[in-house]
Amino acid sequence: MVCRFFPLRLLRVLVLILVACAPVRTPKPPALDWAIALHGGAGAIPRDTPAEERDRYLASLQAALQLGVDRLDAGAGAMDVVEEVVRLLEDDPLFNAGKGAVFNLDGVNELDASIMDGRDLSCGAVAGVTTVKNPISLARKVMEATPHVLLAADGAEAFADEMGVERVSPEYYYTERRWQALQEARSKSGAEPHGTVGVVALDRDGHLAAATSTGGLTAKRFGRIGDSPIIGAGTYADDRTCAVSATGQGEEFIRHGVARTISLLMENGRTVRQAAADVVGGRLRPGDGGIVAVAADGAVAMVYNTDGMFRGAADASGRFEVHIWEAP
Amino acid sequence: MVCRFFPLRLLRVLVLILVACAPVRTPKPPALDWAIALHGGAGAIPRDTPAEERDRYLASLQAALQLGVDRLDAGAGAMDVVEEVVRLLEDDPLFNAGKGAVFNLDGVNELDASIMDGRDLSCGAVAGVTTVKNPISLARKVMEATPHVLLAADGAEAFADEMGVERVSPEYYYTERRWQALQEARSKSGAEPHGTVGVVALDRDGHLAAATSTGGLTAKRFGRIGDSPIIGAGTYADDRTCAVSATGQGEEFIRHGVARTISLLMENGRTVRQAAADVVGGRLRPGDGGIVAVAADGAVAMVYNTDGMFRGAADASGRFEVHIWEAP
Repeated sequence: MVCRFFPLRLLRVLVLILVACAPVRTPKPPALDWAIALHGGAGAIPRDTPAEERDRYLASLQAALQLGVDRLDAGAGAMDVVEEVVRLLEDDPLFNAGKGAVFNLDGVNELDASIMDGRDLSCGAVAGVTTVKNPISLARKVMEATPHVLLAADGAEAFADEMGVERVSPEYYYTERRWQALQEARSKSGAEPHGTVGVVALDRDGHLAAATSTGGLTAKRFGRIGDSPIIGAGTYADDRTCAVSATGQGEEFIRHGVARTISLLMENGRTVRQAAADVVGGRLRPGDGGIVAVAADGAVAMVYNTDGMFRGAADASGRFEVHIWEAP
Repeated sequence: MVCRFFPLRLLRVLVLILVACAPVRTPKPPALDWAIALHGGAGAIPRDTPAEERDRYLASLQAALQLGVDRLDAGAGAMDVVEEVVRLLEDDPLFNAGKGAVFNLDGVNELDASIMDGRDLSCGAVAGVTTVKNPISLARKVMEATPHVLLAADGAEAFADEMGVERVSPEYYYTERRWQALQEARSKSGAEPHGTVGVVALDRDGHLAAATSTGGLTAKRFGRIGDSPIIGAGTYADDRTCAVSATGQGEEFIRHGVARTISLLMENGRTVRQAAADVVGGRLRPGDGGIVAVAADGAVAMVYNTDGMFRGAADASGRFEVHIWEAP
């Protein structure tokens, strides 16, 4: 009897252990031809935002997403798409980037941006520019026309001149709303919704790209650089894993190398949603912000630990959605 | 017979599979009370460097290492030790940091530095400062006295004034050798050894810290920021894994998030030497540079893919060594 049952029972236990040890394989959905996700910032967005204002945000997100959808569907490359969609968001005064940039403590608009190509990890970024209309396009020039990754402040402005990138006078960035936000921030130590715009895309050729642009924090110290122009913190793209753009309390995103960490967790077998949940839910603190990411198979993650995040996603299967608070 | 042997044979096979699946555990050496490693740059350091010059470098490395050893042995905290040892290297005209900083394309010395505390991932950094004697100490002030991580250019200089950090006139950084290097770089597209200094330490309380400081690249474009002030690229420290300081072709180190990647690979079970070898040997290109790292148990990695790296390591077991080319 011992001969008959003991090894068999042990066998069952061992088989159970083996099954428990084996990597979990869930059935993989078919890869999508193209996909895009974008954000316009995360933070304490009041639920009682007037319907008219809410609809303005949703309309802007829809227009940006539609541009990306049209271009990706027509076969445009991911790098061109993320740059073009970020430019549209930079030109929109609603978002804290380009035209709608917030003011720093000295009443100046200092802008940061970065872009990364998943094909070969090429990347470019600018920080602390004050007269460049579309910082994302200057970031791309840094990537394409210099051996460097990051140019800052006066050096970046001088480079913009060399490249013939469109300059504007500092008054271009003036919006009454951002100016009032600075006055409020100066009079109290209050926080306003974190603002940044970002776009990630997978194109028909299977390439990934990510782009992020921001005006930084209202009332930030002159010269402060957040995570948006830091490759690995606010932006990352690698064809083998995913493209990520982050928004939130930039210092925390630098500390945890958020975008790069999501990519590395995927190298270790996590899905894009698992990796994003690990970082935003497990490593960052509640209220820090959020990310949008698209994986090499077109799966999208939009994860935040704030009250809301202006965001949208679309793909070749017909998905097309924009949200501010949790999705219905 | 079937009852007797078949399950037993299957059992053996299953046990073998289980053993093969189990994580490899090599016997762990006892943790060290304290440890330190430092570098003074990596690159194409000519093997026929005159003995006198070679000995000057080795003496400087030894003096810096000895300062760290004395302080750690006496119970100083890792953050104080990495700052103090980097200050000594910044004051030494031999190394490309502080006093010995190289010139950018415009003949200006622009300095970058960063520091990180493994206890809570606190960190601070400065980029593009031109009149700060010891950028590493200004980086620490950014960490301790602002909510920010990275301040750049004029904003960082203004902050130095507020903090009473020692300023110098730009002439302070003039060294004949670096000026000649700029003239040579201007006349050809030659590369010179990558220069940066960095220190990592484990203190008697089990805390890790990392610090990196540089003058950047000879003949770099005005405003260019490399990996040294980028947390996650040139510098990282986390008590749960390791402290890392990098030196080399900064753009590549940003692209691959070198310091943060080594830490994350250790989270996934690699030793510090395995993680460093994976990144420097497997992800970077030959000639890109190197890193020094110390793990939470005091194990040290000094890995480079260039001809040489100015470096040294010491620990509580009595180890004390400095090298330029491969260790004998």
